[in-house]
Amino acid sequence: MTKENNEKVRVFALGGVGEIGKNMYVVEVDEDILVIDAGLMFPDDDMLGVDIVIPDVSYLVENEDRVKAIILTHGHEDHIGGLSYVLKKINVPVFATKLTLGLVEEKLKEAGILKDVTLNLVDHNSILTIGSTAVSFFRTNHSIPDSVGICVETTQGSIVHTGDFKFDQTPVDGKHAEIGKMATIGQNGVLCLLSDSTNAERPGTTKSETEVGQGIAEVFDQAEGRIIVTTFASNVHRIQQVLQAAVTTKRKVAVVGRSMLKVVKIAAKLGYLDIPKGLIIEVEDVNTYRDEQVAILTTGSQGEPMSALTRMVKGAHRQITIKVTDTIIIAASAIPGNEKSVSAIIDKLHRIGAEVVYGQAKVHASGHGSQDELKLMLNLMRPTYFVPIHGEYRMQHAHKELAMTVGMNADNIFLVDKGEVVEFVNGQARVAGKVPSGHVLIDGLGVGDVGNIVLRDRRLLSKDGILVVVVTLNKKTGEFISGPNIISRGFVYVRESEKLLDDANELVTSILTKCVSENVNEWASLKSNVREGLSRFLFEKTKRRPMILPIIMEV
Amino acid sequence: MTKENNEKVRVFALGGVGEIGKNMYVVEVDEDILVIDAGLMFPDDDMLGVDIVIPDVSYLVENEDRVKAIILTHGHEDHIGGLSYVLKKINVPVFATKLTLGLVEEKLKEAGILKDVTLNLVDHNSILTIGSTAVSFFRTNHSIPDSVGICVETTQGSIVHTGDFKFDQTPVDGKHAEIGKMATIGQNGVLCLLSDSTNAERPGTTKSETEVGQGIAEVFDQAEGRIIVTTFASNVHRIQQVLQAAVTTKRKVAVVGRSMLKVVKIAAKLGYLDIPKGLIIEVEDVNTYRDEQVAILTTGSQGEPMSALTRMVKGAHRQITIKVTDTIIIAASAIPGNEKSVSAIIDKLHRIGAEVVYGQAKVHASGHGSQDELKLMLNLMRPTYFVPIHGEYRMQHAHKELAMTVGMNADNIFLVDKGEVVEFVNGQARVAGKVPSGHVLIDGLGVGDVGNIVLRDRRLLSKDGILVVVVTLNKKTGEFISGPNIISRGFVYVRESEKLLDDANELVTSILTKCVSENVNEWASLKSNVREGLSRFLFEKTKRRPMILPIIMEV
Repeated sequence: MTKENNEKVRVFALGGVGEIGKNMYVVEVDEDILVIDAGLMFPDDDMLGVDIVIPDVSYLVENEDRVKAIILTHGHEDHIGGLSYVLKKINVPVFATKLTLGLVEEKLKEAGILKDVTLNLVDHNSILTIGSTAVSFFRTNHSIPDSVGICVETTQGSIVHTGDFKFDQTPVDGKHAEIGKMATIGQNGVLCLLSDSTNAERPGTTKSETEVGQGIAEVFDQAEGRIIVTTFASNVHRIQQVLQAAVTTKRKVAVVGRSMLKVVKIAAKLGYLDIPKGLIIEVEDVNTYRDEQVAILTTGSQGEPMSALTRMVKGAHRQITIKVTDTIIIAASAIPGNEKSVSAIIDKLHRIGAEVVYGQAKVHASGHGSQDELKLMLNLMRPTYFVPIHGEYRMQHAHKELAMTVGMNADNIFLVDKGEVVEFVNGQARVAGKVPSGHVLIDGLGVGDVGNIVLRDRRLLSKDGILVVVVTLNKKTGEFISGPNIISRGFVYVRESEKLLDDANELVTSILTKCVSENVNEWASLKSNVREGLSRFLFEKTKRRPMILPIIMEV
Repeated sequence: MTKENNEKVRVFALGGVGEIGKNMYVVEVDEDILVIDAGLMFPDDDMLGVDIVIPDVSYLVENEDRVKAIILTHGHEDHIGGLSYVLKKINVPVFATKLTLGLVEEKLKEAGILKDVTLNLVDHNSILTIGSTAVSFFRTNHSIPDSVGICVETTQGSIVHTGDFKFDQTPVDGKHAEIGKMATIGQNGVLCLLSDSTNAERPGTTKSETEVGQGIAEVFDQAEGRIIVTTFASNVHRIQQVLQAAVTTKRKVAVVGRSMLKVVKIAAKLGYLDIPKGLIIEVEDVNTYRDEQVAILTTGSQGEPMSALTRMVKGAHRQITIKVTDTIIIAASAIPGNEKSVSAIIDKLHRIGAEVVYGQAKVHASGHGSQDELKLMLNLMRPTYFVPIHGEYRMQHAHKELAMTVGMNADNIFLVDKGEVVEFVNGQARVAGKVPSGHVLIDGLGVGDVGNIVLRDRRLLSKDGILVVVVTLNKKTGEFISGPNIISRGFVYVRESEKLLDDANELVTSILTKCVSENVNEWASLKSNVREGLSRFLFEKTKRRPMILPIIMEV
């Protein structure tokens, strides 16, 4: 009993709070560290040139010997996309359900580390002991099959992580969320609940995926030409419903786009997608069928410039070009930040004259539960403490307010930042400091070599371009021999601004001449004189502030 | 009669179709050119460093002697923001209603051209002859007072431009849209209607501004600390309702932010804002009142980084800092592209712990009519031809579909691009070519000196930064004397990438040595050899493609 009473449980997020993306949560039970999810995030607009963002895992690296497992809730990129980067730093066994594991395997294979990693298959009924901690699962509904919530046992009660969830009363695969099991977990005593806040601002209940299928089926019924459907590649249930609509209307289906092909292959192989024989055709063969016999399932629902759909629209796709008789179903919503690119693709489709079906109402449903479902989860789990996760701060905040409407005390709800630790001892919670956390930016092959200074320079460069000023000085006399040469990029049209650049050249010459005559031949001062003088001149003439890079060569 | 039968009417948009912003429409009746509106647009994400965008008016410049007037429908930036730039190119009389003219005067004063321009005051009852063309007006409801539609008479029937409109059955100022007049215009025969497509995708009817006032009043009733309201500065009706709520709840009002102060001043002076004596206090005096006696009306509803609200949130505003007891009302929706910055400000307010009221439901209503109102306009005007304007292409398209539901023939509806001319002769319309049109980008003082090449360079620079490679050659022998020096900005952290840059330096040296030994001492080839070799090397090592700028100095 004494030992039990001293048990220390710590819960924190390394990613996923105060943001949408790169979910990574940590549950520590005494010495055991269990990591839940390892996601990526797509960069904000101001992270110029950055490809993806992953959590800072330096805490896990420092405590590698204590990290017993990474347990995955489901196979979305914001939950598994950072895994290969994390596993290169710490070698830890991974636990996941079948489809999630299938997607992870592909990812690790691409990263060349599959053989170095221990992957463990679990299902929603698994009960494991990891380190000395018991872990169990419960099935949820989400926009990818095989999603689970996680229950970590402690002597103070369980720590429950919902994963991403909704309660779909008519799930496409007939597999309901395990409400009974959740209620039992609740009855056994939940010390702390970590629950998905994505739709905490949305009243009511999220639409069933089955209704989306009906919407898609209606469009299939009415279309007379080809049908082109784009959705998130990972939405296997929706893909299944598209295939079903194709079967019903006697269409063949071509699958286009790298990620769509990958997910369809893996989901079919693992039994999550039922594909009738002869239904799928090669994209090369589309034109051997009449238009009304064809459906195309493609990537590009976010209007991504290089995606298959965008290329079809631009006439840059090798096999498919959008025609006026096509019906395009955009079965997705725009992820925040993508509104303009999605809008642009819809516009372009209209311009071609094709029929476009888009918008939440008919052909898309969120994978995340709305307020009534979040309240149901809280009522099932009846936790002593609550940490809203998975969302921007305002969503966590809205989730807190929901929890208070079902009777929770504000003091028992923690709106945590990344790294902020909630510690439980003897059933009592308190905020106990912070572990290191933050963004690690990945640009090309570089992990973490792009930071604030590089980004600041990129922002400066993007705004008004750069002027490089080169001059060659005589090392001994300090006189300048050649130059100044001014080369600009991203500043003005050189041809239309010859006078401006000539004047700038003259100014730099006079600054340098003055410096030389005053014997200011220390480079740093020379450079700063040039930079300041030229910057002032250009701002006066153009109200722009390009980056100015003086380079002094000595011979 | 013969002359009348030969009358040629041409209608086209120089801006405002296929986009939200920079509205500018042209109606030509034989030799008379009438311009409707002269707006600006805020740059797209890919227009790096650009401040604002205005229409290309080269057609108007070429035909300056025929341009009889610029007539303004209302005082929003996307309708008047380009005016000072246009008037610098062509000197044309401007016609507008009182509030619009007040805002225009301020703008022209700032641009230093007020004294050079002829401004003509009109009201909704004015009937003018401009050139030899009769022009009349009708009052509409919109999110700024004094909005009008325009009716241009031709012998073939009238050309009607709705301006931006909704039908508000309970307008704040009691001034209803002139439905009777619109019906009369319709009965007299409308050749062509140009109508606002902004909300053509939205079913039903747009909420009345009065309901928004009730929502705001409720928040005022309940708040116990200070109330801070942000909305579009030009939404004078809403500002009036905020003032009213302050009066009712016995609060003083401080007005903060340059554009808010400007509009309040102009609107009050011209009688569009009724400000009880003693209601407004200086922002410096806010702290001399108790919190429950204060309301603050501020700019920043789009989360603009330099706006007053953002500065209050960051603690960077001189007089006001957000407190946990404040209630902030964000009485606006995010303009497309601003979703993330609005979301960020809401987040930050929640983090401070303040109460935040936001979202369409309660404290904001659109200024544009929804589908039922657009249909009402079509039914009132009963035009022979219809040109949906003011919107992205998909909104124009949705508006076309609405027109077809009220009985218009698809052949009589023109979904025009910028510059595309619809020509009317003997009551028959046809598309008749294109006039020059496009974006003119304004960056600092430069109008039009930033174009595709400059933007391409900025994009390149923003993605992976730049490497400048400088080398000094002996003019006679072709040998290199100094360098290569490699300076990078926005590429990698130099400190963490010394090895990479050293290797790059070595590579450039070997390329140059090889060139010199092979007598490739023509600069262009030297440069392209360096650029290609280095680019390949860096891509291999980093998967990035920085801009590479080789500079060769001769001494």
